Amino acid sequence: MSLVKAMAPSSSAIQISRIMRPDDANIAGNVHGGTILKMIEEAGAIISTRHCNSQAGERCVAALARVERTDFLSPMCIGEVSHVSAEITYTSKHSVEVQVNVMSENILTGAKRLTNRATLWYVPLSLKNVDKIIEVPPIQFPSKDQEEEGKKRYEAQKFERLETKQRNGEIILPVVNPDRQTKEPYTVGFSQSSLIHLVGPSDCTLHGFVHGGVTMKLMDEVAGIVAVRHCKTNIVTASVDAINFHRKIKKGCIITISGRMTFTSNKSMEIEVFVDAEPFVEEFQQRYRAVSAFFTYVSLNKEGKPLPVPQLLLENDEEKKRFEEGKGRYLQNKAKRQAEMKALVQQ
Amino acid sequence: MSLVKAMAPSSSAIQISRIMRPDDANIAGNVHGGTILKMIEEAGAIISTRHCNSQAGERCVAALARVERTDFLSPMCIGEVSHVSAEITYTSKHSVEVQVNVMSENILTGAKRLTNRATLWYVPLSLKNVDKIIEVPPIQFPSKDQEEEGKKRYEAQKFERLETKQRNGEIILPVVNPDRQTKEPYTVGFSQSSLIHLVGPSDCTLHGFVHGGVTMKLMDEVAGIVAVRHCKTNIVTASVDAINFHRKIKKGCIITISGRMTFTSNKSMEIEVFVDAEPFVEEFQQRYRAVSAFFTYVSLNKEGKPLPVPQLLLENDEEKKRFEEGKGRYLQNKAKRQAEMKALVQQ
Amino acid sequence: MSLVKAMAPSSSAIQISRIMRPDDANIAGNVHGGTILKMIEEAGAIISTRHCNSQAGERCVAALARVERTDFLSPMCIGEVSHVSAEITYTSKHSVEVQVNVMSENILTGAKRLTNRATLWYVPLSLKNVDKIIEVPPIQFPSKDQEEEGKKRYEAQKFERLETKQRNGEIILPVVNPDRQTKEPYTVGFSQSSLIHLVGPSDCTLHGFVHGGVTMKLMDEVAGIVAVRHCKTNIVTASVDAINFHRKIKKGCIITISGRMTFTSNKSMEIEVFVDAEPFVEEFQQRYRAVSAFFTYVSLNKEGKPLPVPQLLLENDEEKKRFEEGKGRYLQNKAKRQAEMKALVQQ
Repeated sequence: MSLVKAMAPSSSAIQISRIMRPDDANIAGNVHGGTILKMIEEAGAIISTRHCNSQAGERCVAALARVERTDFLSPMCIGEVSHVSAEITYTSKHSVEVQVNVMSENILTGAKRLTNRATLWYVPLSLKNVDKIIEVPPIQFPSKDQEEEGKKRYEAQKFERLETKQRNGEIILPVVNPDRQTKEPYTVGFSQSSLIHLVGPSDCTLHGFVHGGVTMKLMDEVAGIVAVRHCKTNIVTASVDAINFHRKIKKGCIITISGRMTFTSNKSMEIEVFVDAEPFVEEFQQRYRAVSAFFTYVSLNKEGKPLPVPQLLLENDEEKKRFEEGKGRYLQNKAKRQAEMKALVQQ
Repeated sequence: MSLVKAMAPSSSAIQISRIMRPDDANIAGNVHGGTILKMIEEAGAIISTRHCNSQAGERCVAALARVERTDFLSPMCIGEVSHVSAEITYTSKHSVEVQVNVMSENILTGAKRLTNRATLWYVPLSLKNVDKIIEVPPIQFPSKDQEEEGKKRYEAQKFERLETKQRNGEIILPVVNPDRQTKEPYTVGFSQSSLIHLVGPSDCTLHGFVHGGVTMKLMDEVAGIVAVRHCKTNIVTASVDAINFHRKIKKGCIITISGRMTFTSNKSMEIEVFVDAEPFVEEFQQRYRAVSAFFTYVSLNKEGKPLPVPQLLLENDEEKKRFEEGKGRYLQNKAKRQAEMKALVQQ
Repeated sequence: MSLVKAMAPSSSAIQISRIMRPDDANIAGNVHGGTILKMIEEAGAIISTRHCNSQAGERCVAALARVERTDFLSPMCIGEVSHVSAEITYTSKHSVEVQVNVMSENILTGAKRLTNRATLWYVPLSLKNVDKIIEVPPIQFPSKDQEEEGKKRYEAQKFERLETKQRNGEIILPVVNPDRQTKEPYTVGFSQSSLIHLVGPSDCTLHGFVHGGVTMKLMDEVAGIVAVRHCKTNIVTASVDAINFHRKIKKGCIITISGRMTFTSNKSMEIEVFVDAEPFVEEFQQRYRAVSAFFTYVSLNKEGKPLPVPQLLLENDEEKKRFEEGKGRYLQNKAKRQAEMKALVQQ
């Protein structure tokens, strides 16, 4: 896909720009990964809602179903301008793939750099009946090859979503705020954290359901607190593994977002984050797990170079098992990144 | 003090007005008590900072030291305009007493009502050296009597602050988010809640310390979640007991705000809230208790009438002891309110 | 890298898009004029700061100097997407003219409409010495004619700015929140309103001065309260007269924004708004008038049709004088609009 096309003003492209404010960043001046995820999702929601309503028929709002693994290539700073551009790159009968690029621009020096690339999947839900999925108008593909590539991506994410849906069917294991005083530093229990949030009107779509971007911002907030509690230095979001949004969260719910560290490499920390929703207003409704995901953080010194991080102390077999799984994800991502680098160099 | 007088424009009076927005309120449209406490504190901070800088000398910022017990007389709604008017009513050598009235105005019907009255104590801290308390310029009292009355209030709050300071010296008893699945409804453990917040720039004064109003808003948020988890109906803040701010919280801290129900009467719930600060950036600094307070909530039906609340199930001696203490506070406040009513009627 | 080049937004254009949220709007769902003015100013600040730093030399931040008279052509609603696009249309040695278009898009129906057009003037201030104005790199004009037209606009606004600067030199007459109980409805005193705001970090530029857009948003908030108090029906911003920003407002200041009604036509209300800054932290600094402007509001029924508004009751000669001046502005703008319409029809 040519980027030039993506930038061209058309019914299938959009750009959101904004100056980064002190409230968007940590005390070292680095913009929170969650702020960026929220902007990415807003751009995706606009473009896919617009597309799904582009033909006569039932009106709908696009709801976030999945975000593919996302790397944060370089931190953004207060005062810089972020440019989030989104383009629809694939449509199936009931879903829309949106690709988003985030550029950071220093308007004082003119320096620009790519800070993120993300792929999001949306599903259009009827405005009148939120349980009804609307048909997506097909897009025109520049070539048969691009259509085939898109279809492969679609099948791959569909498979993964089904798989995690079953996994999520497990009973919810609550992650509780521990009595930190009694915990050893560098253990899982020491940095484990959770927060609760009462869903308000500005968090929600026209349907009255929480924007995926709002959820991701809160997840990054908790994960960041876990990371900083562990290493006590300046940290930034390095990547987020694929996130699947299986169950919607309604206005007025209480949501609990919990995070625990699962793995440390020499210079990175992996944190698992859970979002549980509690629909207290409707009776007979059980608390349920809405989302879960893995966030990876690195710690930076004043020059922006990665620092070594303290290793996680494992206290039981379950923590050891999770650590090994985290190591697996770490090595897999590392290999994938190296392969991509190689491919880039050979081009 | 006459309300009209308090509203009179003078160098020692100020008024903040603002339309109440959807995000200021719960889903029933009632403005959060925490939103009102935050506005009250902002008015107090402005007027006392202005007063303390009204003479030549070292520049300072007024920091909140104490809020007297505050009743919420009637709920405010989205779309109404709140008028927060503040007046300096006493000054000692190192502290300022501010009295605040909150009026709610329905600007469509013109209807107005008093929703709150609050008394706050501020201490001016040097802008250059935050540990240095500046001398407060004295105010002119309209009469000797009023000066005497103010002095009595000053001595009373000073005594109480000293007393709670010692009590706060105790070890911190952490309140953890329980595994709610395993808890019986209506127990203390079932509704117990906590949230974490990373202190950002907009939370802070020019000194880089958290505004008292920001802390109170977060406390009300947690207490409200505890209340709604217990009774699962629409709830509003009815009153807040006196709050003392003994230790400042610095920008970049993580704060944990925890709440647990301590007492239920037929139609009210008392929740104890703790604020603990974790200064993770400075090494060797211990987590410490910054503030604690009691919030009282009532549950309202659609017509705004108080509903009966489910009684708290007590599971151990500590909970029983706290319940009895809560009952004491409840009866004392009830007696005080009745005496005030009587006095008003006799006027 | 070709990717960066392709993504790079052209140096003289930018677009900001955003979904309108409940907090951006009044209770009837109409987006506040102030929200739109804030977005317009953000787009202008980005594009002019970028342009003024496009050559080697001293780094600077563009500060808003003036906004030309702006009409709000049709109200925007919650859930719609606003697209704010800005372009540099003239440069003098020390100032930049930016033209901004605001489109509103209903992503459910695909309907788009122009909601605003605005012209802003910026002045680049050195990042190191905020009192030093930097030279602006000249832009390329498509034709000699366009350069000439731009020059005329530049001269006209320069003349007006100088003139209002002198007028602003007058002593500040404070507009106080009256004791509304004692006032007759429909008088100036009855609807007169003011609010105060403590300038926080997110309100400010990299220099530590308040963004022009933040000031305009607060001005619109006060003017809207005055309008709704007067007519007690749903109101929207119809237009803003030219605003000149003569004096900067620094972080940590207290600002008082006051509004009073000056004129009513059959279906519109004109409100004068003052912004006074109080730099209490710096010694020996006096409170000063930073900005003043005229806002015009109309009242809409449920179908969005303008309603008649109650006429202003004038109580003294000063109010009568201001009313006549307002009438002059009203008639002048009406004549201008009619001439523009005629020109459009004849094209």
